[in-house]
Amino acid sequence: MSGAPVKFQSRQTIEQVEEGSDLAPKFDDRGLITVVTTDIDSGELLMQGYMNAEALGLTISTGEAHYYSRSRQVLWHKGATSGFVQKVRELLVDDDQDCIWLRVEVVGGASCHVGYRSCFYRRVPVGEEFQGRHEDGQIDLEWTDTDKVFDPEEVYGDAPNPTIL
Amino acid sequence: MSGAPVKFQSRQTIEQVEEGSDLAPKFDDRGLITVVTTDIDSGELLMQGYMNAEALGLTISTGEAHYYSRSRQVLWHKGATSGFVQKVRELLVDDDQDCIWLRVEVVGGASCHVGYRSCFYRRVPVGEEFQGRHEDGQIDLEWTDTDKVFDPEEVYGDAPNPTIL
Repeated sequence: MSGAPVKFQSRQTIEQVEEGSDLAPKFDDRGLITVVTTDIDSGELLMQGYMNAEALGLTISTGEAHYYSRSRQVLWHKGATSGFVQKVRELLVDDDQDCIWLRVEVVGGASCHVGYRSCFYRRVPVGEEFQGRHEDGQIDLEWTDTDKVFDPEEVYGDAPNPTIL
Repeated sequence: MSGAPVKFQSRQTIEQVEEGSDLAPKFDDRGLITVVTTDIDSGELLMQGYMNAEALGLTISTGEAHYYSRSRQVLWHKGATSGFVQKVRELLVDDDQDCIWLRVEVVGGASCHVGYRSCFYRRVPVGEEFQGRHEDGQIDLEWTDTDKVFDPEEVYGDAPNPTIL
């Protein structure tokens, strides 16, 4: 890696943040910004995570996705354990700069710790489909993907599961 | 709208939440869950928002996207003011059920209060592109879309801008 660390600008005006060319991200009271990660080829939503300023700077300067793990409370170079590194092909910011969109290519093809390609492998029936089937208001999730790309036990061993109830 | 209100299950085990068919969403300490909204046709990320339990229930039962506006602190039927209603074609939930993915069709084609089709209309150079151009660490955002779908002043009048500095 070469060059100076990434500089973020301070947030001065709505015009600057929404219509200007300054990168002036809004980190929340935990110091985090929301990140949405999609597959550059399929457009599929792979995961939703968070970055602190360090993770965002490293993602920009290295071109590989870095997050902040809320459950483990550490900087997280995605793929450092599993090998499933995310190469960032495009990084976008939203209107009020409180969300980052990563369009990535995933080495090895998996982004979900459960073993699926995407974290979003179950759907909820909505609208007429919900009304027609669920008269008691009860929902049954439906699988959109049943083929795991890897076995989490083989990859992560006995590392604690990041899901918090 | 017919039928009973949507029922959410309580979160009991990691197995149930990650690998089961119960809808057991995790609302945070503000009572909110993160929502990612993409265009059903283009796959483009349109916006990232939040829902409370009421908004998620109404989205499922009506098939139109409802959010919770943090800046206005109200339930928000997207498009009620602007006319740009989001018809939900698919609703998915992630592994630990703390994020909702909406795949929508947008009536009128716009989802961003600034007037663009998507809230994500600016990109940040990353990796080699960043290193080659930004020796001082300074970032200049680049526009990926310069054509506004509507004029925010005509649609929203003098309603307060939702962006918070």
